[in-house]
Amino acid sequence: MILIIKSSSEKKQINNLLNWIERQGLKVHMSVGDNSTILGLVGDTSIIDIDLLRSLDIVESVKRIQEPYKKANRKFHPEDTILEINGHKVGGKNFTYIAGPCSVESEKQIISIAKEVKEAGAHFLRGGAYKPRTSPYSFQGLRESGIELLSKAKKETGMAIVTEIMGANDIDIFEDVDIIQVGARNMQNFELLKALGRTSKPILLKRGLANTIEEWLMSAEYIMSEGNEKIILCERGIRTFEMYTRNTLDLSAIPLVKELTHLPVIVDPSHASGLSRLVAPLSLAATGVGADGLIVEVHNDPTNALCDGAQSITPKQFSSLVEKIDIMLPIVNKIRN
Amino acid sequence: MILIIKSSSEKKQINNLLNWIERQGLKVHMSVGDNSTILGLVGDTSIIDIDLLRSLDIVESVKRIQEPYKKANRKFHPEDTILEINGHKVGGKNFTYIAGPCSVESEKQIISIAKEVKEAGAHFLRGGAYKPRTSPYSFQGLRESGIELLSKAKKETGMAIVTEIMGANDIDIFEDVDIIQVGARNMQNFELLKALGRTSKPILLKRGLANTIEEWLMSAEYIMSEGNEKIILCERGIRTFEMYTRNTLDLSAIPLVKELTHLPVIVDPSHASGLSRLVAPLSLAATGVGADGLIVEVHNDPTNALCDGAQSITPKQFSSLVEKIDIMLPIVNKIRN
Amino acid sequence: MILIIKSSSEKKQINNLLNWIERQGLKVHMSVGDNSTILGLVGDTSIIDIDLLRSLDIVESVKRIQEPYKKANRKFHPEDTILEINGHKVGGKNFTYIAGPCSVESEKQIISIAKEVKEAGAHFLRGGAYKPRTSPYSFQGLRESGIELLSKAKKETGMAIVTEIMGANDIDIFEDVDIIQVGARNMQNFELLKALGRTSKPILLKRGLANTIEEWLMSAEYIMSEGNEKIILCERGIRTFEMYTRNTLDLSAIPLVKELTHLPVIVDPSHASGLSRLVAPLSLAATGVGADGLIVEVHNDPTNALCDGAQSITPKQFSSLVEKIDIMLPIVNKIRN
Amino acid sequence: MILIIKSSSEKKQINNLLNWIERQGLKVHMSVGDNSTILGLVGDTSIIDIDLLRSLDIVESVKRIQEPYKKANRKFHPEDTILEINGHKVGGKNFTYIAGPCSVESEKQIISIAKEVKEAGAHFLRGGAYKPRTSPYSFQGLRESGIELLSKAKKETGMAIVTEIMGANDIDIFEDVDIIQVGARNMQNFELLKALGRTSKPILLKRGLANTIEEWLMSAEYIMSEGNEKIILCERGIRTFEMYTRNTLDLSAIPLVKELTHLPVIVDPSHASGLSRLVAPLSLAATGVGADGLIVEVHNDPTNALCDGAQSITPKQFSSLVEKIDIMLPIVNKIRN
Repeated sequence: MILIIKSSSEKKQINNLLNWIERQGLKVHMSVGDNSTILGLVGDTSIIDIDLLRSLDIVESVKRIQEPYKKANRKFHPEDTILEINGHKVGGKNFTYIAGPCSVESEKQIISIAKEVKEAGAHFLRGGAYKPRTSPYSFQGLRESGIELLSKAKKETGMAIVTEIMGANDIDIFEDVDIIQVGARNMQNFELLKALGRTSKPILLKRGLANTIEEWLMSAEYIMSEGNEKIILCERGIRTFEMYTRNTLDLSAIPLVKELTHLPVIVDPSHASGLSRLVAPLSLAATGVGADGLIVEVHNDPTNALCDGAQSITPKQFSSLVEKIDIMLPIVNKIRN
Repeated sequence: MILIIKSSSEKKQINNLLNWIERQGLKVHMSVGDNSTILGLVGDTSIIDIDLLRSLDIVESVKRIQEPYKKANRKFHPEDTILEINGHKVGGKNFTYIAGPCSVESEKQIISIAKEVKEAGAHFLRGGAYKPRTSPYSFQGLRESGIELLSKAKKETGMAIVTEIMGANDIDIFEDVDIIQVGARNMQNFELLKALGRTSKPILLKRGLANTIEEWLMSAEYIMSEGNEKIILCERGIRTFEMYTRNTLDLSAIPLVKELTHLPVIVDPSHASGLSRLVAPLSLAATGVGADGLIVEVHNDPTNALCDGAQSITPKQFSSLVEKIDIMLPIVNKIRN
Repeated sequence: MILIIKSSSEKKQINNLLNWIERQGLKVHMSVGDNSTILGLVGDTSIIDIDLLRSLDIVESVKRIQEPYKKANRKFHPEDTILEINGHKVGGKNFTYIAGPCSVESEKQIISIAKEVKEAGAHFLRGGAYKPRTSPYSFQGLRESGIELLSKAKKETGMAIVTEIMGANDIDIFEDVDIIQVGARNMQNFELLKALGRTSKPILLKRGLANTIEEWLMSAEYIMSEGNEKIILCERGIRTFEMYTRNTLDLSAIPLVKELTHLPVIVDPSHASGLSRLVAPLSLAATGVGADGLIVEVHNDPTNALCDGAQSITPKQFSSLVEKIDIMLPIVNKIRN
Repeated sequence: MILIIKSSSEKKQINNLLNWIERQGLKVHMSVGDNSTILGLVGDTSIIDIDLLRSLDIVESVKRIQEPYKKANRKFHPEDTILEINGHKVGGKNFTYIAGPCSVESEKQIISIAKEVKEAGAHFLRGGAYKPRTSPYSFQGLRESGIELLSKAKKETGMAIVTEIMGANDIDIFEDVDIIQVGARNMQNFELLKALGRTSKPILLKRGLANTIEEWLMSAEYIMSEGNEKIILCERGIRTFEMYTRNTLDLSAIPLVKELTHLPVIVDPSHASGLSRLVAPLSLAATGVGADGLIVEVHNDPTNALCDGAQSITPKQFSSLVEKIDIMLPIVNKIRN
């Protein structure tokens, strides 16, 4: 970590800072120039709060050299993490399809979609039971009984299930869930992250709407620091000034995140734009940019069931998408597992 | 709510949509034009998920006419909400000062600051016990024992106390806290909002880093819909492309939010910029723009205690700031209560 | 266009507004409800300044139904525009490669790269002569003599040339240029757009760093409204809070813009991220999402010429990228022309 | 300037870079660590293109220590720049009011407003002649004859006049204009900036919608580097995800910019929000945060002339605003000149 100290700083202030840095167990190299003094901090700087240093009156700016994450950092774990879930591999050269409806509605619905997406090539079944909704007056999901229905679909089809958790209180209810999803709005719900770090379930960690790549990896680090290293990252769009799409899918983030971390990174093309007709082109783009898989909303009867079919594609469209992607996979050096 | 339907839509699709809308208990006025058909939805549209409608293939765009919040809406409650907390009024013509350290560190520290900020004019004492930190390796606050120390300061000085909660599990521990703060990162932690809605404590609801004014009011509505209408909103900066400040304090939001809601709205000048030398100018600006008060970080000995003093001002600086604001209050038609 | 009028508005104010609207040659349908009055404006609303209406005290909000652009609007020109430039087609099913160095440096350099990118499959040669630089102290390009060197490369290889213009004063100097590029920072330099609209050259119009899709199409409309309808749009990244990449490439914009307009849309993968190692993955993504082509920086000797090679790929890497994309083209229903 | 070099870099690559840096006339201090090598560049780094260095494969990140602007930099000119325009001082302790209509419409209109705002306390008269409009179909201003009308108002009232230029071609027409305004969309129209740098007129340089503070100061530097150092900066709102206001007024920028530069900085409260009812609160906020003045849209008859009155306040409201600000000025240590 490098600190640029203002030339106007008093000696006493700089000494206070030097003492404080040393009390944190770090060494300091100091180089005094004409217009500014530069301090180089050596040691484990991950414990240092960079905002705190930035806010000091005598500090002009601060620059990290080492990333603040360790367990998620590819520098210390150069090999790709490959998770083995229900007989399928996630990460490395493997391309993973997660598919299913926006919300779990009924036993018949979820089992029928499960069969269709499995047939089309999906590895895992997704479905919303606890639904994060902006309005308290909107339907909040079937909650506990939604998870029971997912379990039935799992028993019937053998597919592992993925669903979102919204609070640390509910972890026991998620016992039968194979991959627990943390939604974008909870990416920095640190109490939830810590609680999930004490489980042994794979966690699908979505990027927050306004979170940097570094903050995303720090949230993965929260889970990993408690002992659970089974994490799948998921890009789902960030908030920008462009309102024509609900969010702006940040596909450049995929190759960058894969440089920074060894964890698998997948893409959610359904939620980023909120438009079902963009799911196919964004899925091809995500494949081209090097994602390790996709999580796609698929619904069985969009014309009759208005509500859930809206931002979803049909099983037939999903099947045709998988066929196209399968042709692309060799170009990006991936295989369907 | 107004829906613009694409001219290319099939009759059957439009009928499906009309049926669905009517099943939600709404009436529809339809007006067919050359290039588009317009549907006007009449009734309680707050239950409608606007993103769902937007994502339909036949829908070109959707526009709300009625705001989706009711209890927080000034249209239905034209008078300012004035909360009475520990003998002080918040909202209306009253200007409120909340002050105290970033983190609670020790009994001596918190009691001494409490006395100083009270002397300078503060109505309530703030202090962090549970600390939301980007890194799992950073100090997470004194937690439960931090709240005990705040209680001691309360007993000693008679000041009501304000501190942040991070999870629904901790509500019991906050029994002695007078105003419970929800931080920016938890603004859409809906499980927490609902749990707080079932308490009778005043809630200080900070705006999320990437949340619109409407989402902020919807989060207030979450709390209110469960029965607790004692809410103080707090603007603390939004995330933009400008990285010279940590966040961009959105002061235009203050007069706009006060038009939309009857709830009090205060400003946090300390966290927005992360720079103690900006606290005074931003506080004067917040007063000028019509805020109902300020929540300011104040620390007693910045030179010795590097850590907490960084983005805080001293009690002496706080006292001088209060004096300046007191001169300004008549200009904005406010009084110190 | 739909206006929502506040319920608190006075009759006199509404009448003033109605009179003004009719003076603009529009008809008004008025529908009075309990909480708000809705005005529907019928006629050519493209002349109306929507910001002006929004700013009126009695107006709660305004919604356009018709897009404000006409000549660029796919509704009025459903067929794809296909430009024929130097024997190559741009738009429709055709996939176009534009390649060349960041800056033109010397006759030898530009001719040698031109030959190499032509060999690799490029249709057009790009090269910077006038360089927009944030700092007045940075090299501003060879300017007029850079264009002369491009002309020599054109004569030598037969490739049409693409280069950026920075002011209306320079149009005469661009006589020999085949496609004139308008950079992101000049997307709303309206005097330049009008001047280019009076030429007959194809214009490559880059999206501004902070411009919405609608503003981008309005800038195309500026050129078209003066008579020049030969426009190629180019997405090159928008400015967001994420600073790990220089800009965030907005690939979702591609399929959306192609719905809204009949003009061809290409992608610049080099400038968006500013990282040469992201050029290949972002190019594959752009192809997957449906772009009509790519404009790529290619440099012949990155190890010796540090400066220009930095964010560019080598001709060999470009050639290998073209091969991969050629495999992908049938999946997205495109051909190399 | 500090460069962090990746640990994976080859010696040959680092040597190429070292040679290149030295060819730019800079010295390098190199410090080799376990995980990264750090290069410190000493000398005039303002000529270095930081994006170029960032894009190199072997460079992990780059950090400037010296700002890239010199003439605009307070470090080299610690005293406030105070401009003397038409007998009024701008900058330093002086608070300046610029007021007038959105557009110049007629001789009668502009002279009548000029008299009213002068009476209310305005120092300079603003009025739009050349109007930057998103749509080519919107009214583009009276242009040359608008400037003639401003000149008449100047003759009549003795007020210096401020109006916006849109292209370098028009500079001759602006001979009688006292302060030439560069609008937000032209902040990085470098050809225009250079041309204005060769005049001796004071320039009012608005911040671009998506431009950082550093880019803004670099645009000032463009003008100054050509010899014209008479610049007034103007904050007018940046583009963010919040769409309730047209732009987000970045008031924190004011004290920060005043730390970085010696140039005067004023605020435009009219264009930021696009809502006339926000002009007064935002003006008080701008005063509180330390601005050197305001540029405010004022219109004489909002009820009859719908168009121009929309985002403007009346002379009476302006006069009452000036009275309030005059009370505030001593608090922020300013005087009306």
